[in-house]
Amino acid sequence: MKILIVYAHPEPTSFNHALKDKAVQILQKGNNEVIVSDLYNQKFNPTANWNDFKMIDPNLPRQYSVIQRDAYLKHQLAEDIQKEQDKLRWGDVVIFQFPLWWFGLPAILKGWFDRIFAAGYAYDKEKWFSTGLLHPRKALLSVTTQSPLSAYQPDGIHGDIKQFFKPIHHTLRFVGLSPLEPFVAYAVMNIDLQERKRYLTNYQLHLDKQILQRRI
Amino acid sequence: MKILIVYAHPEPTSFNHALKDKAVQILQKGNNEVIVSDLYNQKFNPTANWNDFKMIDPNLPRQYSVIQRDAYLKHQLAEDIQKEQDKLRWGDVVIFQFPLWWFGLPAILKGWFDRIFAAGYAYDKEKWFSTGLLHPRKALLSVTTQSPLSAYQPDGIHGDIKQFFKPIHHTLRFVGLSPLEPFVAYAVMNIDLQERKRYLTNYQLHLDKQILQRRI
Repeated sequence: MKILIVYAHPEPTSFNHALKDKAVQILQKGNNEVIVSDLYNQKFNPTANWNDFKMIDPNLPRQYSVIQRDAYLKHQLAEDIQKEQDKLRWGDVVIFQFPLWWFGLPAILKGWFDRIFAAGYAYDKEKWFSTGLLHPRKALLSVTTQSPLSAYQPDGIHGDIKQFFKPIHHTLRFVGLSPLEPFVAYAVMNIDLQERKRYLTNYQLHLDKQILQRRI
Repeated sequence: MKILIVYAHPEPTSFNHALKDKAVQILQKGNNEVIVSDLYNQKFNPTANWNDFKMIDPNLPRQYSVIQRDAYLKHQLAEDIQKEQDKLRWGDVVIFQFPLWWFGLPAILKGWFDRIFAAGYAYDKEKWFSTGLLHPRKALLSVTTQSPLSAYQPDGIHGDIKQFFKPIHHTLRFVGLSPLEPFVAYAVMNIDLQERKRYLTNYQLHLDKQILQRRI
């Protein structure tokens, strides 16, 4: 099995980094292969812009997704986009490791979605959901939060955390990536070493159940 | 009344640009003042990173929001962050003008949230929602979509568009910005000049009702 981990955190001492390392360690066993896209380390540019295309057909309307599709089909996307697309295509599973910032993806990871999930590559006209071009790959969100679990209960101050996964999971489904059950480590800025260890153990069990035992 | 428009689109011929211009034109009347943050034009950096701080207290844990709060209180945030914070504080209303990309904010705008809504500036411990530090300001999402209105109906392929506004509105509420009714222009890549004009007229009516007539 081939696994891509897209990792979006600026700090090597973070719990996100520890979760990423744990996943690499667990998933590399057997015949599996793991690749990590470390977006901060790669200085990944999250801003979709006209320089994403080596050439722009002057006859096309100045619409990002239209030019994106044309550039993909003509192999004219910028190198950094092509590299990420190649890694994603290579994998059977993609894990997104990130802190929940403002109830969503950190900008560097949102921009990975904006630039990598190109028309023609990830989806196309009538090629979405079960016929999305990244089908039948799987995707797993591994998320840390600042607020505790109680805040993300249906009666907590933020409400059920699933509502914040909705736009992300819908995006993944649209391009044919089936979401696996997410893993959430709550309030990671305030936990002690023992709780960290417990979360790392739970993450190991989670990956084992969601990925390794499935033999995707 | 003072209005900040945060505008996130790379293309001057886009319908987003036309909506932004329409808002400036409508809202500048009377004693109102309007400022635009044109994120693409400003080459706004969306990636929250350690260079956001002129100094980092070595005694603090390497946690972005902790250092962000400390840097804000000591006036040590990067200049571009301070400028946006000043504009937001100056305004009574903020309008976010953006295309819905992957059912959420374009990365350049998500990064504006990540970097501008600093602890200490936008919220603090127990200073959130009705006591959020940006209270009693208002916020309005003005959004364009690629899919038609039918796709965003409860029984459409994406479902009710409100579910995708949820994380954004929750963020705004958290920092004390009360969301006004959003404006949505659907399928803007495929509409003709007449439909464009209709949307611009509707937007004018919307701003009149939601902002001008309220005399916020």
